[in-house]
Formats: sequence, C-alpha cells, structure tokens
Amino acid sequence: MRAAEPEWAATTVRRARAELCRLIEPGDLLGAVTISALGAEAAHRLLVSGREPAEHEQQRVGEAAEAAGLSRGQRRLAEGLQRWRTRLLQLTRSEQMLNALHRIGGGVLVPEDACWPEQLQDLGAAQPLCLWFRTVPGAQDPYARMLRGLPQPGRSLAVVGAREATDYGSRIAWESARELAGHAVTVVSGGAYGIDAAAHRGALSATEGAPTIAVLAGGVDRFYPAGNASLLNSIAEQGLILSEMAPGSSPTKSRFLQRNRLIAALAAATVVVEARWRSGALSTANHALSIGRPVGAVPGSVYSASSAGCHRLLRETPAQLVTDAADAVQLVLEQSTAAGTQGISAQSEQPSLPMIGQPETCAAESVQPVDGLNDLERRVYDALPARRFTTSGKLSEVAGIPVPQVLTSLTRLRRKSLAREENGEWGRARRNMDG
Amino acid sequence: MRAAEPEWAATTVRRARAELCRLIEPGDLLGAVTISALGAEAAHRLLVSGREPAEHEQQRVGEAAEAAGLSRGQRRLAEGLQRWRTRLLQLTRSEQMLNALHRIGGGVLVPEDACWPEQLQDLGAAQPLCLWFRTVPGAQDPYARMLRGLPQPGRSLAVVGAREATDYGSRIAWESARELAGHAVTVVSGGAYGIDAAAHRGALSATEGAPTIAVLAGGVDRFYPAGNASLLNSIAEQGLILSEMAPGSSPTKSRFLQRNRLIAALAAATVVVEARWRSGALSTANHALSIGRPVGAVPGSVYSASSAGCHRLLRETPAQLVTDAADAVQLVLEQSTAAGTQGISAQSEQPSLPMIGQPETCAAESVQPVDGLNDLERRVYDALPARRFTTSGKLSEVAGIPVPQVLTSLTRLRRKSLAREENGEWGRARRNMDG
Repeated sequence: MRAAEPEWAATTVRRARAELCRLIEPGDLLGAVTISALGAEAAHRLLVSGREPAEHEQQRVGEAAEAAGLSRGQRRLAEGLQRWRTRLLQLTRSEQMLNALHRIGGGVLVPEDACWPEQLQDLGAAQPLCLWFRTVPGAQDPYARMLRGLPQPGRSLAVVGAREATDYGSRIAWESARELAGHAVTVVSGGAYGIDAAAHRGALSATEGAPTIAVLAGGVDRFYPAGNASLLNSIAEQGLILSEMAPGSSPTKSRFLQRNRLIAALAAATVVVEARWRSGALSTANHALSIGRPVGAVPGSVYSASSAGCHRLLRETPAQLVTDAADAVQLVLEQSTAAGTQGISAQSEQPSLPMIGQPETCAAESVQPVDGLNDLERRVYDALPARRFTTSGKLSEVAGIPVPQVLTSLTRLRRKSLAREENGEWGRARRNMDG
Repeated sequence: MRAAEPEWAATTVRRARAELCRLIEPGDLLGAVTISALGAEAAHRLLVSGREPAEHEQQRVGEAAEAAGLSRGQRRLAEGLQRWRTRLLQLTRSEQMLNALHRIGGGVLVPEDACWPEQLQDLGAAQPLCLWFRTVPGAQDPYARMLRGLPQPGRSLAVVGAREATDYGSRIAWESARELAGHAVTVVSGGAYGIDAAAHRGALSATEGAPTIAVLAGGVDRFYPAGNASLLNSIAEQGLILSEMAPGSSPTKSRFLQRNRLIAALAAATVVVEARWRSGALSTANHALSIGRPVGAVPGSVYSASSAGCHRLLRETPAQLVTDAADAVQLVLEQSTAAGTQGISAQSEQPSLPMIGQPETCAAESVQPVDGLNDLERRVYDALPARRFTTSGKLSEVAGIPVPQVLTSLTRLRRKSLAREENGEWGRARRNMDG
C-alpha cells in the first residue's frame, strides 16, 4: 500500500469485503448472513476456493439465516455459493480496485472500522458489506477527508423526492437543505435530478455548513446521472460520495431500490419533499419507517401530481407533516432523543408498521412493466441489454445468478413480453420505457 | 296560530324556549342546565316571575350543574337568574317573533320535537336551547320545507375555512361541495365570505344534490354578511338557514365562536379547506374533535399563509389529510360507522384530545385585542357600540349581564384601552380593528 494510506486501510478483512461485494448483490441477505456467521475472510476463502461448504459451515450459516428471518428456501448455502461464484471470473482484485480509486480520492470502509457509521446497524442483516467512498481527486489523505464528510451522530437528514420536481418542490428542497446545513445537519440524498439535486445544491450553498452526502446506486467511480456530474464533483470536493457497489458497477433498478435503504439508514430522519403517487422516494420513506426512523412529508397543492405521494404518506403512514427546515430539524431531534434504542432487524421486525405499497423502481415514477417480477426476474431483466443481445452465460455473470435460473427467468420474462431471443441470444423486448 | 302551522308548532314548550333563548346567551351553560333540570316551561315561569328560586330548585339545578362539570362559581342559580333577567324588559313575545318569522318562511325547532337533529345531543350541556330556521318567504308549510333541508342521518359534512380564501382554496371548496352534494351529502357551513361561500355555491350548483345548510351567528331574519345576501337567499330557497339566536339578534364575536360548535355538531365530520395560523375555522375543528367527530384538513403550499392553519391541524391534532371529495366522504363514512356510540359531554369529557390554541374570534384571522379577555369582558366588549356611546344600563340589557358586573368589565376594558367613557356613556376605544 502507498504511504498515504494508513495501516488500518490495508487489512485483509477490507480486501475480503471489497471483493465479496462484487460477488454478492445488495439485498442478497444469505450473502450478508454468511459473512457475519463465518467472518468476512473465511467467507471470502470459501467462495474463491470453489469447494463444497463443510457440514459445520452449512449449519452455522443455516442457524444465522433462520435467526435473521430468512425463509427455508433462502437459507441454502450451496445455492448461495453457486450464485455468488458466477461472477468469480470477472472479479477484479481488491488491490487493483483500491489503487484505481485512490487516484480519485476514494477508498472503502468496512463494518470492522471504528468509524463505520453505527446507524447502519439498524439494517440488521441488510447492512451493506462495505461502503465505497469518493472525495477530491488527488487528495493526500482520502480517509481523513472521508471522516470529515461523515455526519455527526444524530445530525443528518435525508432529503429526497421526485426526479420530475416542480419549481415549488425544488425551492423547498434547496431552502431547507441550505438551512439544515447551516445548522450542522448533514443532508443525505441520492444525487438524482430534481429534488435530490436541489437538496444537495442547497446544502452546498450554505457558508460553513455541514457537508452533504450523495449515496449512489452504482460505483463511485462513475457519476450517474451524467447530467449531474458537475454537481457530484462539487459534492465529492465539499462533502462525500458513498456507495455499497464496487467501482465499475452500473446503477440498475434493483440497486436503486437497495440504495434507498442506505439513504434511510444513514440519516437520522427522512423527509420526502415531492413524490408522485408511485415514486422511488416512497421506498426510501418505507425503509426509514421499517427501521423506526421518523419520516416527514412536505404538503403541496392537491392538484399537483408531484405532491400526491407526499399526501399519500401523510394519510397512510405515521409520516409527519413538514413545512420548513425547523420542522425537519424537529424530526432529527426526535430520533436523537430516541437514540440508544436497540437496532431493529429490517427483515423480521415491525411487520405491522403501515407502509405504502410494494418497493418500486426508483428510476420509474409510474407503473412499470417490471412491477410484479420476483427478485431473480428483476435482476435478470436489469441485466438485459436494451438495444443489443447477449448470451445467457454473460447474463449470469452480470446478474450474479447461475445459468439455469437465468434461463428460467428469461423464459418467464419472454412470456411477459419483457425479453426476446434471437439466435440464442437475449435482449429486452422493445417497449416504450426508460430502462 | 295560523292554519298553515301544524299543531305541534304551537306548544307551550316551544314558546318557552323561544323566549328563553333571548334571555340566555349561547355558552351560558348554567342556563342550559337550569332548563334541562327544571324543564323549559318551569324555567321560563321562574325567570319571568322575578321571584327568588326555591330551595328545591336551587338544589336540582346545582346537582345537574355539578354533573355537567360546571365549576362551583358557575353553578349559582341566583346569579344566573339575575344575569338572564337583565334582558326581560326587552323581551319580544314568542308569538310575535314566530309570526314575523313565518312571513319569511321561518320557524323554530326545539329539542322536544321528533325531528330535532339528534346529533346535537353530542354537545351535552352545550346543546342549543332551540334552532331557528328560515326557508322560502311565503312558503305554505315552512316546517315541511325545513324537514327537507335537514341532512339525512350521518350524511352531512361541514366545509369551512378562512374568509380570506385564495383561488386555490375556493376552487377546492366549490368542487368538493358540488361533488358531495351530488352524493346526497349535505354541506354545512357558516355563510361567510371566502371558503364558506364557495362551499355553499358548489353545493347549490349540483343538479339534484343534497341541500346545503348555512348556520348563522345572528338571527335568521337578517342576512350577514350583507354581501352574501343573494347567496343566503338561494340557500334559504334550496336548502336551509339555521341559527340558535332569536330573530333580531346581532352576530357578535362570541356568538360566532358559539355558532362554530353548531356547525361541528350538525355535521358528521368537518373539513377545513383553508385557514390561517389563527383562524375561526380552527375553532370549528376543535369543537368537532372535542365531541369525537372526524376532522379533515386540506394541504396546500407551505408558502401560503392561508394553508398554515390546515398544516397546523395536521401536525398538532388527529385531523386527517383530505385532498378531494372522496377523502371527505371517507371521513363521513367513518363517523357513520362509529354511530351509535354515546354522546360525549362537550364540557367535561376528553380533555386530553390535542386541540389548537384557545378558541378565537371567528371574525378575526389575526391576533385580536380581545384575546385574553374573560367571558364577561368579551360579551361587554361585543355589546359596546363602535361609533357611538351608550349607557351601562343599555349595555347590561344587550350583553345580558347585570349592571354591576358590566361596570367592572368596562373598567377593565378601559384599562386595556378597549373601551372609553364620555359623559357617563361608553363606547369602544378607537383602534384599527374590524369589529
């Protein structure tokens, strides 16, 4: 390792996790459980060895998976290994990833680090395997810069909302974020167009304010959406870019949904500024509610489609009405006051909390053809190229799913007119959609 | 009585109550308790006789007052009689009032009538002594017309809000009321400018819809505000005008506040469309909450002062967010489902229900000089002429308060720069106010 990197950055557990997160998709709870049951290094060795799991490994993972609330079908370590190993051939070595990232002021945090954001523990088994970060290119000490960008305990607020924001929503997001940042509250958002961008910009505009954090759905090496590259550069310089996805990972729809749980868990509370009736921002709110974090929603005109999701939150969930930064700070304080309570497993606890609908794609504000797909189908669909064709073997690698299951999913997707086949290769069916 | 009036309209209890409501102010709970304890006719005889109350009368009234939650100081029958008798000299005989009212299609309902709106019983001791009504001038049978105007059980909604409504609020009130009326839900409101007027107009615009009801703070013989005379005429023709105040009574500020409890109690649920941070419409919502009726509030721009009161209701009370007529109907259905529950005394029960601030003057949307006055001072202030002077004896009659107490209140009002005296006569101090 280079001298600029402190000793603790070069641990084997960091290298193990950095590689594991390339093999195991976010939301693959068996992967997270396996790592916590066996330890990251042992899990990594088992995975890359290619061997069958030992009896005692299967038992430990099975017990941990049951404790985490996974169904019997989700608990099979052998199936997990088969799934995770589909990407082994593509695996970039952690040293290579970290070297490339270091040049753009980045690195990776792992739960074993003392500075790991403890609020992520509320996610239980859904806690990310690691957190990639990005600060200023050429930074002498990216780790020190990253530390400055992390929020003070309890002083962070997620400000999220629709990409198709109105002037009204953008103004509220900008003004509130600016005021929050000025009061040393770190504004966390998703770096997207619309409300996200307005919130980041508002926070950046505060003189001597708290830094702002953008949590991306793809790798931190690539700024997405491209139109926000300049904004994301400013956030990297003055605040922090985070992602659980390894460098080089593309932001798929299922990763957007998983990313939303990180925004919700990193922040002490979440405020939805504008959201349509079905909106990815609502999934962030639902994640926050599921781990017992306060959620706020900003009201608007009953004639504005961009406020319909907020009104829905206020009617159907315990979300509180927020009209300005003071109300938002109140939410953060509520959570800080409740701090010290036990973390809640995101998967198995609080099933009775009212939430809105099913998790939905963040990239889609309206009813999408992918609604109603199961997790495997959705991941295969995400992996399908929109304008060309690819082999089932390649799809298996990209989606991190063994070939037989990829083929089953492809057949189902074709039946739903979502996939098409030509000469043994697969692509998306032509539809009017944005994916 | 004339032949056009049915027999039941000429009962002595009706005559007794019609006169009692000229002597006892709304909100004078000892008066209501005295009538229910002794019976309306006996209470009327005692009052007009001028005699001291008998020991057994004092005891019965005292016990009933205690049961209704009145404080020791509020329970003294002798003081009540002194208060009520101050207006005896002015008393118009009920026959005269009813004859005059009959010509404009009016009459009076009493709790002893079979058609008395039973939902008013939820007000407990604060139930009105009687309800004056007005329909079409020259109506052959005003009582029959009145019956058609009363809402079907559980099918009524109060739609209320700020006089200084925006186009946004007026549009929502109009559209919702029109749709509600079309679904046979009677829209109840206060006949004021702004939201009230828009709601009445919307209901009237529905073809074959339910009638709309305007509850006035003054007598039904006089349309207030004058600018709404044409609208109120239409309501009298197609719907119903109601008031607990006898004909000839002027709409004072305290009567506006008391009127709001009738709107809340007549309707199965109350929706506030627009309201400033301090608004009379909030007092209607508080009355509704205090008797266990669902309350809805319409959200709006966080930058609109006319929505601030609605947002306050949504934050601080169990009020539900309402975006359209369907949401409003939902509130009404909720209440209908809960029907059959016991009525709740407005005075003594449910003290823990969150409500907003203190009851305020309906005629005033901002902080008023009369805030902080006690009930006597407020009634004397209301009785003070704004542009001329009058004697304390006259004030005693108008306010329904004995002369010594009038003088005490006048002294306090002068100290607060609210009253002034010239040559032994009293008037309001000159201030920039709308009263």
